[in-house]
Amino acid sequence: MKTFFNVEDLGDLAQALQEAREVEKNRYGFQHLGRNKTLLMIFFNNSLRTRLSTQKAAMNLGMNVIVLDVNAGAWKLETERGVIMNGDKSEHLLEAIPVMGCYCDLIGIRSFAGLTDREFDYAETIVNQFVEHSGRPVFAMETATVHPLQAFADLITIDAYKPCRHPKVVLTWAPHCRALPQAVPNSFAQWMNAADVELVVTHPQGYELDPKFVGNATVEYDRRKAFVGAHFIYAKNWSCPGVTRPADYGKILTEDAAWTVDSASMALTENARFMHCLPVRHGLVVTDEVIESPRSLVIPEAANREISAEVVIKRMLETL
Amino acid sequence: MKTFFNVEDLGDLAQALQEAREVEKNRYGFQHLGRNKTLLMIFFNNSLRTRLSTQKAAMNLGMNVIVLDVNAGAWKLETERGVIMNGDKSEHLLEAIPVMGCYCDLIGIRSFAGLTDREFDYAETIVNQFVEHSGRPVFAMETATVHPLQAFADLITIDAYKPCRHPKVVLTWAPHCRALPQAVPNSFAQWMNAADVELVVTHPQGYELDPKFVGNATVEYDRRKAFVGAHFIYAKNWSCPGVTRPADYGKILTEDAAWTVDSASMALTENARFMHCLPVRHGLVVTDEVIESPRSLVIPEAANREISAEVVIKRMLETL
Amino acid sequence: MKTFFNVEDLGDLAQALQEAREVEKNRYGFQHLGRNKTLLMIFFNNSLRTRLSTQKAAMNLGMNVIVLDVNAGAWKLETERGVIMNGDKSEHLLEAIPVMGCYCDLIGIRSFAGLTDREFDYAETIVNQFVEHSGRPVFAMETATVHPLQAFADLITIDAYKPCRHPKVVLTWAPHCRALPQAVPNSFAQWMNAADVELVVTHPQGYELDPKFVGNATVEYDRRKAFVGAHFIYAKNWSCPGVTRPADYGKILTEDAAWTVDSASMALTENARFMHCLPVRHGLVVTDEVIESPRSLVIPEAANREISAEVVIKRMLETL
Repeated sequence: MKTFFNVEDLGDLAQALQEAREVEKNRYGFQHLGRNKTLLMIFFNNSLRTRLSTQKAAMNLGMNVIVLDVNAGAWKLETERGVIMNGDKSEHLLEAIPVMGCYCDLIGIRSFAGLTDREFDYAETIVNQFVEHSGRPVFAMETATVHPLQAFADLITIDAYKPCRHPKVVLTWAPHCRALPQAVPNSFAQWMNAADVELVVTHPQGYELDPKFVGNATVEYDRRKAFVGAHFIYAKNWSCPGVTRPADYGKILTEDAAWTVDSASMALTENARFMHCLPVRHGLVVTDEVIESPRSLVIPEAANREISAEVVIKRMLETL
Repeated sequence: MKTFFNVEDLGDLAQALQEAREVEKNRYGFQHLGRNKTLLMIFFNNSLRTRLSTQKAAMNLGMNVIVLDVNAGAWKLETERGVIMNGDKSEHLLEAIPVMGCYCDLIGIRSFAGLTDREFDYAETIVNQFVEHSGRPVFAMETATVHPLQAFADLITIDAYKPCRHPKVVLTWAPHCRALPQAVPNSFAQWMNAADVELVVTHPQGYELDPKFVGNATVEYDRRKAFVGAHFIYAKNWSCPGVTRPADYGKILTEDAAWTVDSASMALTENARFMHCLPVRHGLVVTDEVIESPRSLVIPEAANREISAEVVIKRMLETL
Repeated sequence: MKTFFNVEDLGDLAQALQEAREVEKNRYGFQHLGRNKTLLMIFFNNSLRTRLSTQKAAMNLGMNVIVLDVNAGAWKLETERGVIMNGDKSEHLLEAIPVMGCYCDLIGIRSFAGLTDREFDYAETIVNQFVEHSGRPVFAMETATVHPLQAFADLITIDAYKPCRHPKVVLTWAPHCRALPQAVPNSFAQWMNAADVELVVTHPQGYELDPKFVGNATVEYDRRKAFVGAHFIYAKNWSCPGVTRPADYGKILTEDAAWTVDSASMALTENARFMHCLPVRHGLVVTDEVIESPRSLVIPEAANREISAEVVIKRMLETL
């Protein structure tokens, strides 16, 4: 595996889930693969789970790990071509990327959407430069439009907790005070479409996800209808994806508190499990009561981030 | 050992000192304990000695180490319950703590006193949540009220340099330009009370330490009297502990330069050794002459931080 | 090897180059040297290449590595003696240095020139305190006046790509929007003087490098003349070294765009290779066309930073 951005990169999903179960039982059993191999984790943005779980996964595999916070301790990077660099950015990505590739065997990269230029974000302009110029296998630790390590961990979690063979999974938009990227819902929709579940996406008008991610999922604007019969409620805020009105890209269209996931809405479901990728804003996205209830899976879901990362890194090591 | 906050957590002190001497001679001899084990060091505040010595100790033991600076590169954490999180804090400690526990075997935590709410600080509100919700053994890398790795290193140092079986140890307040927590003097008093020494505490009126730490030590407001016959002078500034006047908690009551430890005051002692946990402000807490003299133990004291940390981590690994 | 600041520290250069070639072929072959040894990398300034390549080199050698960003997460350090420390600096270098030495076996240090006090910078005041007080071998990761890991990597690169036994190497000043230190050109001149090359230095009047570095090199103020017959063009900006007019130390005397390295100037050379230590400002120091051309060596030059660092650390480990 040379890149890990989309669900297709993983190949057969049932086989990947089987490998995840093996890794979970035997996380230190593959250290021959990582010996004298170095993972470089590059962060353009903050991180807690991804930072810790990916580092842990690589160390499980016997690798050396270097963590680089680009905005703390390194040089600010110019990302556009053809500019005269007389501002605050000391180094150009065009040199920085192959240089970083020199000192490692694998690259994990976090670079969020800027949310101002839809075309730039959805073309994955930054991350594609890493793929093209680093000379190393590259995996996403959340890019402008995808967060596949999260989606894979979500799938592992749903697979472990599903009450039936073909569960109903609802991805529900929830309100937030800041404009957030669409990477998590994009990847979640993409992965659920590829998995053996019934996916329903619910959100206010205007928050339609990009068709390449939402695929054949049912889109239901009436959240009450969407929740009926659900086995998993996956809550997440996202800003306007700009599908119907490009000018609204990255904007907050509503903060309607009626979309907060609370006990009343959960009561409509088939005793559903609650999921969220974290971090989550209590009182906006979800009530304390729901997230702290025994039906909440947010902690096992986070724990599975170590497993999804270990499977992905293991596969990349195997093809070095 | 599941927690390390107070001297009682270590059990028999003579035995702990014996173990410290063994570890000092054989610091790489216990790597079977740390293999495939991960220490997560969580810093809410700055650190030099603790950061380096604890990391070194864990690596001596063959562990993997992940360092997390919460305020650099991670999400700002909400620490209060029941709030609507619409400010600058993206994640709640209630999720962050069990999540962090997922990716490690041991947790070291640094979280200083806020110095505005005595009850909140002295209840160890933050750190206790880690103990309760992380699912991992937790040790203090300085909390709101204690700094036991420092006190243990101080004890190891005093034990190595004591000129007699039952030395006189004086903890003396010294002036400072900023309001500092009481964690170091609290732990030092607690540990010296448990050790085979005569402890005298001296400070201006109003700086009385909490009785649960100062215990049966002699409190002497006349520094000259306190210093007479001393074998060890342990200098430290602290802000008002708010014992006699709770409204003064965390305040600077005086910056009286007469309390600076200088050669004249050291001359009153029994040729005492000078100690300080560092960092120290020259010219405020102590004169250059005293801290640079051959009687100063500040460097061996710092070196013993590696030893105290290694004993503590070793004991926690043994009970995993 | 106990220190690494100047070319003399490395001894015979031909032998060092031979060792570099061996290390390049067998970078994991010396791990017995690094076992249970710790490198402390101390950064007072930003870093990308040095941070990654030095860490990689030490891990190649089986060492433990601790990275300390002094201005992020540690205490601000007082560097002057005899002051009353009542400002924002909590700790004095006089204690911090021996303390840092306690927790490691080798020290790498980055501390740039302040560019305001020539005497202070050129006396290497900060770094010399590390040599004197840390008790450990110390190597430069760029100091106030030298950057020998870069110059050694440059030499390895020139040695690998030279088209003849005694190539002509031109160090050329180039314009920049910020005042930069002289460490890179100083070390490059020093190393080229010791190597088997013809060194020509070219820059506008007033940018004369310190004679102790420029040595017997030809200084040519007419860049066109300097470039004729060159096999390597090494571009770098530096601020005024204050040799002819001490009052100008650290100043930008000109930003003359005629000194930007472009295709027209490269056409004067003997099909020269282009070199730069990076980071580089496109459009100021060099045009896109030149740095992206197949004659550009900036990436192999960066890759050799791992090799130069590994040789230096290996030699220090051998003399522990």
